Amino acid sequence: MTEYKQAIVLKEDLGMSRGKSIAQACHASLNAYKRADGEDKKEWESRGSKKIALDIGDKDIKSRFQKAKEEGLPAYLVKDAGLTEVQSGTVTALGIGPAPESKIDSITGDLNLIE
Amino acid sequence: MTEYKQAIVLKEDLGMSRGKSIAQACHASLNAYKRADGEDKKEWESRGSKKIALDIGDKDIKSRFQKAKEEGLPAYLVKDAGLTEVQSGTVTALGIGPAPESKIDSITGDLNLIE
Repeated sequence: MTEYKQAIVLKEDLGMSRGKSIAQACHASLNAYKRADGEDKKEWESRGSKKIALDIGDKDIKSRFQKAKEEGLPAYLVKDAGLTEVQSGTVTALGIGPAPESKIDSITGDLNLIE
Repeated sequence: MTEYKQAIVLKEDLGMSRGKSIAQACHASLNAYKRADGEDKKEWESRGSKKIALDIGDKDIKSRFQKAKEEGLPAYLVKDAGLTEVQSGTVTALGIGPAPESKIDSITGDLNLIE
């Protein structure tokens, strides 16, 4: 059976506060979800809506976004308005999926889970 | 002009890890969103989709959920499946909105932002 998940990738190297990270993550999650295929959404939801939070550290987040789009996966890159903790336009997060787990892993499989 | 926001309320007293909190918050955010009125969603999105992360600590989270529902606000209570950090059925998070800011504040105005 195909497993589904959504990956929420954060730039933890920016040193964002916990509350800021949470808001950016939710922004990524919701907007990637909106871009997903209806069938994929249904499959994902029927199995508990698995979500994983990953740290990309100082690796290139935009290239992961590009790769996700090339693979036809729903993806959304969060650029911060820069009103508080980071400079305007800073990319803080990336949401990918819901989509089949193996497809997500082909793009984010080398990243560490956020503890 | 009416401002809109979504509140993501977390039980920070459970001592969840950062990654776990992020996943629970996204679950609350997405499911509250799905319950929102179409016009409210549009208004919120057209103004940057403001989200705030709040800590309810050891206060009663279920009564806030009930109050939100009584007020006709979209709300979703997250109960964890308990596979990892907390006991099965533990309420970890609550999402309220998007909705007009004043209505959200009438339910969560006494809670502290997560730093």
